[in-house]
Amino acid sequence: MQRPRADADWMAAAVALAWRGRGLTAPNPNVGCVIVAKERIVARGRTQPGGRPHAEAMALAAAGDAARGATVYVTLEPCAHTSARGPCCTDSLIAAGVARVVVAVQDPDPRTDGQGIARLRAAGIAVETGVLAQEARAAMAPWWLRATHGRPFVTLKLATSLDGCIAMPDGSSRWITGDRARAHGHLERALHEGILVGRGTLAADRPRLDVRLAGLEARSPRRFLLTRGDAPDGWTALAGPEADPGVDSLLVEGGAGAASAFLAADKVDRLLLYRAPILIGGGRPALGDIGLADLATAHGRWRLADSRMLGSDRLDVYERIRKD
Amino acid sequence: MQRPRADADWMAAAVALAWRGRGLTAPNPNVGCVIVAKERIVARGRTQPGGRPHAEAMALAAAGDAARGATVYVTLEPCAHTSARGPCCTDSLIAAGVARVVVAVQDPDPRTDGQGIARLRAAGIAVETGVLAQEARAAMAPWWLRATHGRPFVTLKLATSLDGCIAMPDGSSRWITGDRARAHGHLERALHEGILVGRGTLAADRPRLDVRLAGLEARSPRRFLLTRGDAPDGWTALAGPEADPGVDSLLVEGGAGAASAFLAADKVDRLLLYRAPILIGGGRPALGDIGLADLATAHGRWRLADSRMLGSDRLDVYERIRKD
Repeated sequence: MQRPRADADWMAAAVALAWRGRGLTAPNPNVGCVIVAKERIVARGRTQPGGRPHAEAMALAAAGDAARGATVYVTLEPCAHTSARGPCCTDSLIAAGVARVVVAVQDPDPRTDGQGIARLRAAGIAVETGVLAQEARAAMAPWWLRATHGRPFVTLKLATSLDGCIAMPDGSSRWITGDRARAHGHLERALHEGILVGRGTLAADRPRLDVRLAGLEARSPRRFLLTRGDAPDGWTALAGPEADPGVDSLLVEGGAGAASAFLAADKVDRLLLYRAPILIGGGRPALGDIGLADLATAHGRWRLADSRMLGSDRLDVYERIRKD
Repeated sequence: MQRPRADADWMAAAVALAWRGRGLTAPNPNVGCVIVAKERIVARGRTQPGGRPHAEAMALAAAGDAARGATVYVTLEPCAHTSARGPCCTDSLIAAGVARVVVAVQDPDPRTDGQGIARLRAAGIAVETGVLAQEARAAMAPWWLRATHGRPFVTLKLATSLDGCIAMPDGSSRWITGDRARAHGHLERALHEGILVGRGTLAADRPRLDVRLAGLEARSPRRFLLTRGDAPDGWTALAGPEADPGVDSLLVEGGAGAASAFLAADKVDRLLLYRAPILIGGGRPALGDIGLADLATAHGRWRLADSRMLGSDRLDVYERIRKD
């Protein structure tokens, strides 16, 4: 016998849909939505590439008459402002006659920011909020950081030996990690709008930085070079970690100089640490000076968010602990 | 309803007893033994500190008449040679009238090496071998390596930041890992007969290298200094990784010079990697040159044997993959 599903179970499905839009929906948030009637999902939707239609619009269109009296699970508060690009989701939900809306997080956009919820309630619709809020925010972390702090969400990728080296003393680094870790690295590229290396890495490796996974080639991110000078054709120059690349998610892939610059500026939000079961000894370190004053200061800054084996390599994902 | 227990279940209890003697039984192996009658353990034994009495002798004494017709699970083949220090276990088992003996691994000591098993069988006792052989060998790895290869089992401990540093650029390293990781490090000390540091670590830290865990203070290992010169009072000089310290288990605790010397000589059998969720950047690397020719050579040498969180630190245990 199955237990009756709780709101969090349905919302988990909406969060999974939200993830499918990660990196694709700028300037809009990657929202996920499911519509549930009689303990069954009758429709699902997610924000489409480029930001329109919204997740709720997709799901309502798919549900048709089944939306009447149903419960809608949506990872972000439905928008309350009309736009030239499409209808306002709050109005669409009211018009569709839904009975209940469960929202993971309130929209920080000042044009909505609680007004969507208020208008749904005013129309007699029951509204719950805060269900899987943390998971929903994580799914749209780049958009969220841009909306709340006006800056991109930066992921730093490091692939090292057990002793923390990213290359042999002579600079050779093919290969430290194995096939599965490298494939995972390509998947991470596909989830980002931009990818950045420093000038040393560009000169040494001439990296393509594209997504080499079947079916995801079209999701290769824009390429950025960390330089105060010019960037070659097909690349965009970024003068420093404080400069705005104009994308919501940036993957910093190398080398030690670029990584250290972003860490020293405290602009790294997430660390991807791929670690191969090898020892190099005296190789090139993953990082240079990051401006750390003492060991005590180093603690309490990173939280383990995920850990998994990829073949014989381990991936640990850490998130920056921030107070605001 | 419980399933009937299999031989491996009872042997697992014997292996756990063997571990309790780790580091205490030299020059004898740390063996574990349980005696089972009517699906119950009626007695248990493990090799006592200093090597005598043997595990089987302890268990037989505890079992008394209950040993008659019982099954004996023992992690190493019972000894077949008489000694001035005690009776021969094979004879004792026959005299006690046990019905069956299950052995994890055959004794590589040429004085036994199959003769214990042969004599038990000649006396009409059923003998099984090879049950949890790998686990039993792991429990007595130091004695096993000494018996089969004439050298000590060396564990290298590294405590690093996520970027592989063991100290700040100025050498300060208090603290990188947290309380629980440090307590685990003390437990590892208690499992070793000897502990070694290099001269740099001795000069910089004046480490006590004792076991600071309540109840285990008496298990502090002998202290070795890696030096071609003299060692201070209370320390023993070891000229190099190839020199025999005269103990079966040696824990190499620091610093990078000592660690690299043992790795370059390929004398490290086990790696303990404690990793704190901090970034240092430009700090002191865990290792110097270990004589690695190229990256391809680095692969296939280490197998992940254990992984666990200790507070917010991670411990990964790797074992050297050796063909012989």
